[in-house]
Formats: sequence, C-alpha cells, structure tokens
Amino acid sequence: SYSVSMKFSIAVMPGDGIGNEVVPEGLKVLQRAIELSGEPVDLELTDYKVGAQRYHETGETLTDEELESLRGHDAIFFGACGDPSVPSGVLERGVILKMRFGLGHAVNLRPSKLFAGVTSPLADPGKIDFVVVREGTEGSYTGSGGSVRTDTPQEVATEVSVNTWYGVERAVRDAFARAQARNKKLTYVHKHNVMVHAGHLWRRVVEKVGQEYPEVAVNYEHTDACTIYMVTNPERYDVIVTDNLFGDILTDLAAAVTGGIGLAASGNLNVEGTAPSLFEPIHGSAPDIAGQQIADPTASILSGALMASHLGLETVAKAIETAVEADLAERDGTQRSTTEVGDAIAARLG
Amino acid sequence: SYSVSMKFSIAVMPGDGIGNEVVPEGLKVLQRAIELSGEPVDLELTDYKVGAQRYHETGETLTDEELESLRGHDAIFFGACGDPSVPSGVLERGVILKMRFGLGHAVNLRPSKLFAGVTSPLADPGKIDFVVVREGTEGSYTGSGGSVRTDTPQEVATEVSVNTWYGVERAVRDAFARAQARNKKLTYVHKHNVMVHAGHLWRRVVEKVGQEYPEVAVNYEHTDACTIYMVTNPERYDVIVTDNLFGDILTDLAAAVTGGIGLAASGNLNVEGTAPSLFEPIHGSAPDIAGQQIADPTASILSGALMASHLGLETVAKAIETAVEADLAERDGTQRSTTEVGDAIAARLG
Ligand SMILES: CC(C)[C@H](C(=O)O)[C@@H](O)C(=O)O
Ligand SMILES: CC(C)[C@H](C(=O)O)[C@@H](O)C(=O)O
Repeated sequence: SYSVSMKFSIAVMPGDGIGNEVVPEGLKVLQRAIELSGEPVDLELTDYKVGAQRYHETGETLTDEELESLRGHDAIFFGACGDPSVPSGVLERGVILKMRFGLGHAVNLRPSKLFAGVTSPLADPGKIDFVVVREGTEGSYTGSGGSVRTDTPQEVATEVSVNTWYGVERAVRDAFARAQARNKKLTYVHKHNVMVHAGHLWRRVVEKVGQEYPEVAVNYEHTDACTIYMVTNPERYDVIVTDNLFGDILTDLAAAVTGGIGLAASGNLNVEGTAPSLFEPIHGSAPDIAGQQIADPTASILSGALMASHLGLETVAKAIETAVEADLAERDGTQRSTTEVGDAIAARLG
Repeated sequence: SYSVSMKFSIAVMPGDGIGNEVVPEGLKVLQRAIELSGEPVDLELTDYKVGAQRYHETGETLTDEELESLRGHDAIFFGACGDPSVPSGVLERGVILKMRFGLGHAVNLRPSKLFAGVTSPLADPGKIDFVVVREGTEGSYTGSGGSVRTDTPQEVATEVSVNTWYGVERAVRDAFARAQARNKKLTYVHKHNVMVHAGHLWRRVVEKVGQEYPEVAVNYEHTDACTIYMVTNPERYDVIVTDNLFGDILTDLAAAVTGGIGLAASGNLNVEGTAPSLFEPIHGSAPDIAGQQIADPTASILSGALMASHLGLETVAKAIETAVEADLAERDGTQRSTTEVGDAIAARLG
C-alpha cells in the first residue's frame, strides 16, 4: 500500500494573557477537524514565545532571526500580545506590526457575521454578513514621525501616514475579487474630504481597478458616516475596503455589532504568497480576565477555520464554521470555561 | 425712562443643501427664546454666502477678507457645506477648516445625550449623557502632506498628523474643566500603542494637566475599543477628550447611538476668546434630501442653544433645550416639514 500525507508547518504564537488560553482551543478544534475530515494532512507545530514575560526577562520582542525563521512556515497561528507592564507600543511594534510589515501582510481580512443565536447590541441588526479588507502594511501604522522638544510646552509630535499605489492596489484588488465572488458590492471607506492626498490616491486606485470588475457596484463612504451605518443599517455592506487605521477602528465596531470581539477572527494575508500569512482573533490579550479560563475561544477557533481555508483545506474550514454555528445557536448564557467551549465545539465536528 | 440693550453680532452662514433649511429654524427658535426671556438682547445678523453655488460662479470659497471680517462678530451660526459637484476637499478646506484653523477653534464640543422619547438603534442604550471634547485645530486635519509620482503605479501619498503640546493642552484643559463641573470622569481616547509619538504626547499632557484636577478620575481607551463601548456601554462616559480625527469618527458614532445626526449639535470654540466661536449641526449638507423641507432642524436649533450659552444667555439656552426635549418626547413618527418642526419647538418655548 501507498499513502501520501500533506504536511503543513505552523508557527504557533500564543503571546500574552488570554492568548495562552484561546490558542490551544483553536488548535484543538483545527486538529480534530482535520482528523475527522479523513484528509491525509499533518500539522507540524513550532512554538514561538513572544510577549511581556520574554520582554522583561531578555529585553527581546521578536528578533530578526525569528522573523526569518517564520518564513519557513506555511502559516502563523497567533493569540494576542500586550501587557500593562510593558510600555505601550513596544510589543505592538516589536511583535505584531513587525510581522505584518516584515511578512507583507497586505490584507488584514476581517469577516463580520451575525450568527444565529448571537445577541447584537443593536435593537434591529438585520442580516449582518460582510468582510472588511483592511490594508495591513502602511497608512498611519508605519511608525514614521517623531517628536521635537519632547515633554516641554513647545513639543511637536508628528505621525506620518504613508500610502502607496502599490500597497493600496494590493488591498483594493483583493477586495474587488472578494466582492466579485460574493454579492458584488464594494464600499470603500476613507476621509478624502480632509485627507485629500491619501484619499485621492485611494479613489484613483479604486476607479482604476474597478474597470476590471464591471459587475461590482462601488460606493464611497466617509469613515465617520460608515460608523453611523454600521449601527443603523449594517445589512448594506458586502465588502468594505479601507486603510489600516480606519480599518482598525471599523472592525472593532463591526465586531461589537455582531456580538462582540470574543467571536471575531482575522487573517493577515500575504496575497502574493511570498511569506506565510497569520491568523489571529481581533481581540487583545485582555489582562483583566487572563488566567481565569473565562475567555471565549471562539475567535481563535474561527481563526483556525480561516487558516484552514487559506491552506486549501476547505472541508476542514467549513466543518469548523458549522460546528461553531451550531454551538452559538445553542448558547444559553450558562457560564462555560474556555476549555469547555473548545471541547463543545470540537464535539460538534463531524 | 432708560433702557440698555445688549447687541450680539452674529455671522449667519447657511452654506449648502439642508444648511439652508435648518439654519432659519435654528435662528427662529433662538430669536423667539430671546424675546420670551425678556432679556434686553438684540441679535444683529449678517449673512455670509459660502458653498457650492458661489464656488461655481466665482471660484471662491471663503476669502481672507471674509475671514478677517468674521472676527468682528460675536459668534458664527453655520449650517453645512459640501456638494458632489465640487471636488471633495475644496469646500471642506476652503470654508469649514479655514474657519476652524483661522479662528483658533481649539475645542470642537459635541454633547451626546439620549433624550427621552428618542429611539436609539441600541437595544439597551441605558442613560447616555456625555460630551466629547474633540481637538479642533491640528492632528490629521492640517493638510500637511502631499503626493509624488501622482497617478502612477509609483505614487506615494502622505498625510502628516501634526500635534503640539500647546494645541493638545488647550483641548485637554477644557475637557478637565468640563469633567470637574460634571461627573468628574474623563476618558481620553487615542491609539498610543501604534501612533506612539502623538499618543505619548497626549498621555503626557493628560497626566500633567490632571495633577490640577485631583478629583477627576481619568482613564484611557484605544479608539477602536472606544467604538465597542459606545455600542455596548455608552453609560460609562462623562467627558471624552480626543484628537481631531478620532473625534470626528467617534462623534458621528455617538450621534448615531443617541438617535441620529439629525439631533447632534456642536460648538467650535475659541477657548481664549480671541476670535468668535462657531456653532453648527454635526450633520452635513445632505444633498440627497436637500430642498424638500424634510430635514430635521433639531441639531441646528440645539446649536442655537449652545451659542446662546456661549454668549452668556443661560436662560435662553435652557429654554431652547427644554422646548426641544418636550418636542422630542412627543414625536410620534408623524412626518413634519422642517419648518413645522421649528414652529412646534418655538411654540413650546415659555
Ligand atoms: C494591537 C494593535 C497594534 C492592533 C492594531 O491596531 O492593528 C489591534 O488593535 C488589531 O486590530 O489587530
Ligand atoms: C465636513 C468635514 C470636514 C467635517 C470634519 O471632518 O470635521 C465633518 O465631518 C464634521 O465632523 O464636522
């Protein structure tokens, strides 16, 4: 007899706080779903330790060597990073953004769906089912800028948002392709009435790429207006494409209206396939509830589904989503531990 | 007999679209409230014509001479500006931002209150009553930046957010004073884990000014997290202070959760008193519904109350607010014209 098995090498990076509690659940469900699928797939897991503890012990965040070594994996499964004991920005820039920028994560993909059985804070949420394509490698996130006369009454601090046709086009192209495959509606969001330089670049790129997608209906919204629709008529959205900072803000709001960041998964995608993509819950490390086994692992589990789909394991991804949907539909407010939620979802597979 | 009357010189600038429909209602209610108050106050109104029509006819937005002449007034009563026939950014920068920057409108004050009888899109809004102090003269709104290799695949466009201790302190000081006079809770909102230069300037200013307000409890939220609380727990807020761009986004969201931008008033305040302040609805010109007498003038009417309060006419301000609250409490969904709403509120005065 003769058997072929496919090996995927996954970098596992739980990080800080509840990252350490939710990532094992995400992996457990993913591995069980692969097993049950009967597909000859093996996951080879490599742990990477990043976060506050390491930073305090060694002063390191994520080294250049580790960033290089990450390139050898097929995907990265991330938890969360950040702790009040570390100065704000250090772990964000030293770990999270270092990977997004270093590995060319052009698209930060954030699906927003109100699942059956989930309570939205909106009185009349309607059917919410859209994806946000957030540009992931530029805008206000580059770290450009600085301050002079720091900590004096004459201080001036700047933040430079850097936007390139190249970077914007990568995200916009991905968004059009997704809209074409979905309901053919693309909303691009910016603030081009004020941020005219970057805003008009976005507009030109959308118009240009849009010529290749005549079936996709395109409309524009200012970021401020988009927050209004997000709470009054989120049904209107199919695919949203926007810049790094607006996308950060809008996807937390989108997560909130679809029942909370405990459920929101994301993928940081290298769309050219030149480096591994990264999958993570959009929530943070939540130090206030860490270590108590009360964090909801659903976002991590759904991030596992996004990773499976990215690796071509569509059946596995679908199975996980179906199991999550079944679990969500029957949540009745009973308090379950992080592990219990993971077990319950795993038990619904297959 | 001997009588003294106080004259306030008001620049009136309806602007575009529904600005022309709501501003007359704002003024009507304000004048009626003054009359009924018995206070010896005269409003002297001077019209300024700005907006799309003038731009098309003359190429002018707001001239330097007009900006100078505006300094001679006690306050400015503004409607809205913007039209799809004018390239995005031209009227915004040529009229709205020209005044905010030129007249030193350090504080963009945006009260958010869920009035009795008003329906929020939130299922369980609780008691919403906070004010946002949005910095008004710097951040991403300065227009700094530009683009190179424009409209080519090699284009790079930048937007520079400029933040000064001076500018941040003006807003932060105002916010602390308001918190001290209200419920002694100040939330400052930024994204200092990513925009470290500006974010840490904000943090330092808040810490410094906060030493003068030991009774005010201060907490920090990232902008993205703030959007979540805005829909899950807006009761938590008393005074929010934030930068120009975050404030723009958060106040539209705040308006949405308190029943819509048809109700949201604002003041652009010169806190040193070196130039007139400006009062305006936070909504725009709404070209889609302009000219139909269906716009809700409530935001303009409440902007009139903010202006009255700013001019020291507290009784007048209070009377307008009370009349608006009474009208809102009894709105039953019957469609009324813009003028009818203004008349109804005027009729409830006194
Ligand atoms: C932690 C932080 C750097 C990050 C971001 O701002 O992108 C987070 O908010 C997110 O949305 O993934
Ligand atoms: C019209 C626009 C320039 C303005 C802003 O972005 O400040 C508006 O959205 C507002 O909030 O007053």
